[in-house]
Amino acid sequence: MVKNKRPRVCIIGAGNVATHLARALDSISIILQVYSNNIDNARRLAGSLQSQPTAIDKLENVTYEADYYIVAVKDDAIETVARNTPASNGVWAHTSGSVPMTVFQPYKKRYGVFYPLQTFSRDVSLDIRNVPFFIEGSSESVYDSLFKIASMISHTVCPADSERRRALHVAAVFACNFVNYMWMQADELRRQQNLDITYLKPLLDETLRKLDSCSPAQAQTGPARRGDKQIIDKHLETLSTAHADIYRFLSDHILREFGYEQD
Amino acid sequence: MVKNKRPRVCIIGAGNVATHLARALDSISIILQVYSNNIDNARRLAGSLQSQPTAIDKLENVTYEADYYIVAVKDDAIETVARNTPASNGVWAHTSGSVPMTVFQPYKKRYGVFYPLQTFSRDVSLDIRNVPFFIEGSSESVYDSLFKIASMISHTVCPADSERRRALHVAAVFACNFVNYMWMQADELRRQQNLDITYLKPLLDETLRKLDSCSPAQAQTGPARRGDKQIIDKHLETLSTAHADIYRFLSDHILREFGYEQD
Repeated sequence: MVKNKRPRVCIIGAGNVATHLARALDSISIILQVYSNNIDNARRLAGSLQSQPTAIDKLENVTYEADYYIVAVKDDAIETVARNTPASNGVWAHTSGSVPMTVFQPYKKRYGVFYPLQTFSRDVSLDIRNVPFFIEGSSESVYDSLFKIASMISHTVCPADSERRRALHVAAVFACNFVNYMWMQADELRRQQNLDITYLKPLLDETLRKLDSCSPAQAQTGPARRGDKQIIDKHLETLSTAHADIYRFLSDHILREFGYEQD
Repeated sequence: MVKNKRPRVCIIGAGNVATHLARALDSISIILQVYSNNIDNARRLAGSLQSQPTAIDKLENVTYEADYYIVAVKDDAIETVARNTPASNGVWAHTSGSVPMTVFQPYKKRYGVFYPLQTFSRDVSLDIRNVPFFIEGSSESVYDSLFKIASMISHTVCPADSERRRALHVAAVFACNFVNYMWMQADELRRQQNLDITYLKPLLDETLRKLDSCSPAQAQTGPARRGDKQIIDKHLETLSTAHADIYRFLSDHILREFGYEQD
């Protein structure tokens, strides 16, 4: 690809998602600017990119010149960004699972959504080619533009309107955020007994691997799945209030879901 | 190893754990019997083993001749097994995370615990060498006997008294059973929108892979971790009562744990 044919991109945001997208886009585009309301964060991210973008912390300084504006900020800041940036003819796209694309409508002509279904932590590298991107555009040409740039960094790019995108996002909260929170509890419990984390790793691996051969409903095991209320009560006795609260709540749900009468 | 030096084993139980242990022990021991109170289950498991054990469904028919009795039955059935089987001098060991080994004390001379920390589904094969076994024995010689046979099938064998074993078991309920239950919810949500399960797989893989480089507390992401109550409320609006109940409960816990004020 000839360098001057590369799309020009402005990255709005310098958090987890912005960082990973900027790194991925850096190799297939020219990143002109990185915006953050914290200039240090903008500089840190800008300084790590081959494109050598300018770090900025004023929305009114966002360039007119970009082909794409990737708005990867907190959901409730997207409208502020849309309102306070130049009315460039580039494609404006946010990366949120739960904000409608029409947030841009009063302020921009060409806009859409560029939603990566993944958990991003700034300092944990990942292969973005395996991340599915869900795309929505205010017109066919905007959709095509977003599809094109997403396909340059990922193997999986699909259309998703707001309803499907929100369903994916909610599913992801369960499948990732709540799952990780369960691991947090397990990690606290094993620490209390000075048990090595490595004892639990084969269990985590196997729990996930089982989903290759059966559905989560089929893979469910454990005291509540067996209706073993004696064990549930024994476990509750040993747990701190916060852990017991979660353990009881989820065990009750599993007992009900698998048809055991509740007392 | 000379065949007649192989330990002789009696498997009490024919469920998920019994099935996997029987398969693993089959190659390094002679399995004499498989007991289940359902003779069809005993026959099915017995028939799948190279040792060609006898299938039985009466506890009084359990042999005196075994070196090891592996009692892999529901927790509340262990005492019944201990009470109604011959007082053989072999080593009696149950596989429960939460029952003290003294359940055997009134009935047997040599007893202990043989606890595999793993999730077993009968029809999902796994490599038992990676499963950590936690061992407890009524005497040093019993401990050594259990350590020996566990080491023949697994790379990781450790001592654990009742307290540590229970802590591991409770941690495993969070790390595996509750995690899988979260995946069940995600699976239901994506089905409601006819979304392919493959869209979620990279997220599940990455959620687990992140734990190679940081703790679950550091890896936590999502609306509640960010204190994004607007998104939480939006998600709750779209969810059915049961899903919303779980979503609200866990989000509230995460909000509190990460220092966001609750309304």
